[in-house]
Amino acid sequence: MAYEQLKERVLKANLELPKHGLVIFTWGNVSEYDREAGVIAIKPSGVDYDKLTADDIVIVDIDGNKVEGALKPSSDLDTHLEIYRNFKDVNGVVHTHSLWATTMAQQGQEIPAFGTTQGDYFYGTIPCTREMTEAEIKGAYELETGKVIVETFKDKDPNAIPAVLVFNHGPFAWGKDAMDAVHNITVLEYVANMAWHNFALNPNMKPMSQTILDKHYLRKHGANAYYGQ
Amino acid sequence: MAYEQLKERVLKANLELPKHGLVIFTWGNVSEYDREAGVIAIKPSGVDYDKLTADDIVIVDIDGNKVEGALKPSSDLDTHLEIYRNFKDVNGVVHTHSLWATTMAQQGQEIPAFGTTQGDYFYGTIPCTREMTEAEIKGAYELETGKVIVETFKDKDPNAIPAVLVFNHGPFAWGKDAMDAVHNITVLEYVANMAWHNFALNPNMKPMSQTILDKHYLRKHGANAYYGQ
Amino acid sequence: MAYEQLKERVLKANLELPKHGLVIFTWGNVSEYDREAGVIAIKPSGVDYDKLTADDIVIVDIDGNKVEGALKPSSDLDTHLEIYRNFKDVNGVVHTHSLWATTMAQQGQEIPAFGTTQGDYFYGTIPCTREMTEAEIKGAYELETGKVIVETFKDKDPNAIPAVLVFNHGPFAWGKDAMDAVHNITVLEYVANMAWHNFALNPNMKPMSQTILDKHYLRKHGANAYYGQ
Amino acid sequence: MAYEQLKERVLKANLELPKHGLVIFTWGNVSEYDREAGVIAIKPSGVDYDKLTADDIVIVDIDGNKVEGALKPSSDLDTHLEIYRNFKDVNGVVHTHSLWATTMAQQGQEIPAFGTTQGDYFYGTIPCTREMTEAEIKGAYELETGKVIVETFKDKDPNAIPAVLVFNHGPFAWGKDAMDAVHNITVLEYVANMAWHNFALNPNMKPMSQTILDKHYLRKHGANAYYGQ
Repeated sequence: MAYEQLKERVLKANLELPKHGLVIFTWGNVSEYDREAGVIAIKPSGVDYDKLTADDIVIVDIDGNKVEGALKPSSDLDTHLEIYRNFKDVNGVVHTHSLWATTMAQQGQEIPAFGTTQGDYFYGTIPCTREMTEAEIKGAYELETGKVIVETFKDKDPNAIPAVLVFNHGPFAWGKDAMDAVHNITVLEYVANMAWHNFALNPNMKPMSQTILDKHYLRKHGANAYYGQ
Repeated sequence: MAYEQLKERVLKANLELPKHGLVIFTWGNVSEYDREAGVIAIKPSGVDYDKLTADDIVIVDIDGNKVEGALKPSSDLDTHLEIYRNFKDVNGVVHTHSLWATTMAQQGQEIPAFGTTQGDYFYGTIPCTREMTEAEIKGAYELETGKVIVETFKDKDPNAIPAVLVFNHGPFAWGKDAMDAVHNITVLEYVANMAWHNFALNPNMKPMSQTILDKHYLRKHGANAYYGQ
Repeated sequence: MAYEQLKERVLKANLELPKHGLVIFTWGNVSEYDREAGVIAIKPSGVDYDKLTADDIVIVDIDGNKVEGALKPSSDLDTHLEIYRNFKDVNGVVHTHSLWATTMAQQGQEIPAFGTTQGDYFYGTIPCTREMTEAEIKGAYELETGKVIVETFKDKDPNAIPAVLVFNHGPFAWGKDAMDAVHNITVLEYVANMAWHNFALNPNMKPMSQTILDKHYLRKHGANAYYGQ
Repeated sequence: MAYEQLKERVLKANLELPKHGLVIFTWGNVSEYDREAGVIAIKPSGVDYDKLTADDIVIVDIDGNKVEGALKPSSDLDTHLEIYRNFKDVNGVVHTHSLWATTMAQQGQEIPAFGTTQGDYFYGTIPCTREMTEAEIKGAYELETGKVIVETFKDKDPNAIPAVLVFNHGPFAWGKDAMDAVHNITVLEYVANMAWHNFALNPNMKPMSQTILDKHYLRKHGANAYYGQ
């Protein structure tokens, strides 16, 4: 019973997904990593959101060993763990098949920062992973999904671009905790929607300037931020 | 009064349709086949969803003879029956004019598996029937609609691809019971929406690889499935 | 107080418009013609739907003279009256700026019957009026709008095609009473949505065959209809 | 406590934004200018709509000095103030990142009056600002945003075209008070949605005639208006 608060937070973050229209049925999953306690709380596999309780949330360690909980963790657990192992400031991860981000993931289309809505949350283009190899898919698929995400960020700061599209699949996003990750994937869905419509009118659409991207990202993030209270 | 539970299940499955935004007015119909009892329960024709009760559900035999119920069965009954007669594992059938699947049916456009959302439920392309002939349309139209669906699956496994688009008309889907059929048509609507948007950006869009289709379909279906509890 | 029931029916039909997402603010208006009593009940001009009461509904005669009511009738009254004067079986008229039908009206794009959803309600193409002349616009504009609608149906049966797009403006629909008109404009919005998406993928999209149009329209309408109870 | 009514009005106008689906999270802000009292009431920065109270509304003077309130005003305050200083009949301003208007702002695409829905509220094209210069963005950015809006209207009447798209960013709208501004931005979102779909089918789409624009705008606005009660 040591993880009550963690499980409550993860339950609440999972329930934001249907509320924001990002999931139907049992799709999607959110986790949070308590790095001090060394445990991750994650949605169980294949459980409906309207039946989900805090007790159903599964507690595992960073190697995926179950610590607490009667149910099996999300089948995407190993992807979450690989993100936590490599992105050291990230303590919340979310995966959905939300409509617009998934459409763009199917298209293999990264999302350039076309406007300040994206710039307020993402410091540039939201990338799409390369196609996974046959060996990766036939191997430890969920772990390999995490590895291809990490590879996609080898020259990028995951704190500044807290989301990715997995080619053929859908979005993952992250943040400082579970709720922050959900916040970021909600914004991703919104900007993916707008970007699709921009590309449809102009396939050669260019991102906004670095100057305005700097302005918007940095007025909300970093040492000189002045947005909010 | 032997069919109370069957009628309750079929009522509940029908009411999922407006809940998921798949029908307006009296459009759409769901049935379930109790193969042991030899009866099918189906929505009555032209009755509003908000007035529909379990008592209104009509019970017929596999030849369409009424067994119980005061109302006329759905005008699409003969299509349902033809599916039950030919797809031996199917015990639930649903028909709607849901927006995206119907748009694709009007376009005569099958839905290739562009992503894992489709691969989690459908083992490949969701086909569109050929155009029906003048003789078929002027003949026993609803029965012929069922026959053209069956013909479309002559080289396909209806258990692995539990839906079809009827050209110029709209989707039919099926499953192991009424609720499962409704689940499948809801996913169909979702992937039809995404596929439309993929085709709009790229008319030559190609499906994802067989390798990743195998991975996703088989982690949820068949002997080695590991998704869910 | 002779018109209580008529006003209640017209109130109820007007309130269907925001419920079906066809209007915002004060947009749109529904009327019903009691041909025996010789009066038309219509929404007042510029009144919010959530404040509208049966008492607010205005009663006028076929020449537009007020018979009962404290408020001014809809500014589109003269269009309704011209429709009633010319389409003798029509006793309900509705006008909205619903999103998809209005988009098509702005495009000047008629809506061919691409599928059976349209064929179940409309016996063919839903036409778009010609552009109105400068004289018509500067003259008795609302009356002239009615006249151009009537002109558009000079070779069409308004009972078989119970809706029109007014070029640059938006849809009008009609029916045997106010609620039936609202039903028809709701279907129009649905098929306009699908038709837009069909044209976007294929600008040369062709309507379905006359054979299947006949089948679907005539199984719901006319002497040999067999849909419904 | 002199500004209770003003703060209540601004609270109410802000709460219309999530109700009309124009904002998520803390996005967007509405203000109202009481020119007699010489004060502006505006949403605080970064506060969630479902937690917002009248007490949270910040009162500032026309130079942006705080008059009353515990919280920091919206970071877009200086844009609002520049609009109030230059558009003398404007006493309400609103900013959102609503989906369709923002998509068009990202595209740098002004919104011609394609139909009477726009003509009922806007006397012509809704313009998009030029791209801001590096100096403007790096300088007093929010003030400069206001200046580029004012510049965009150097040959236009802001009372007749009560909205603008800020390039790469999103819409601002205004009106005679806060609620009127919100009304106008809601219409802007609606016509932006339709205009996107018109451009998608026909990139060379032309606006409707001046004659019908005059008719619709002037039947609702100005000396000879006859719409409403």
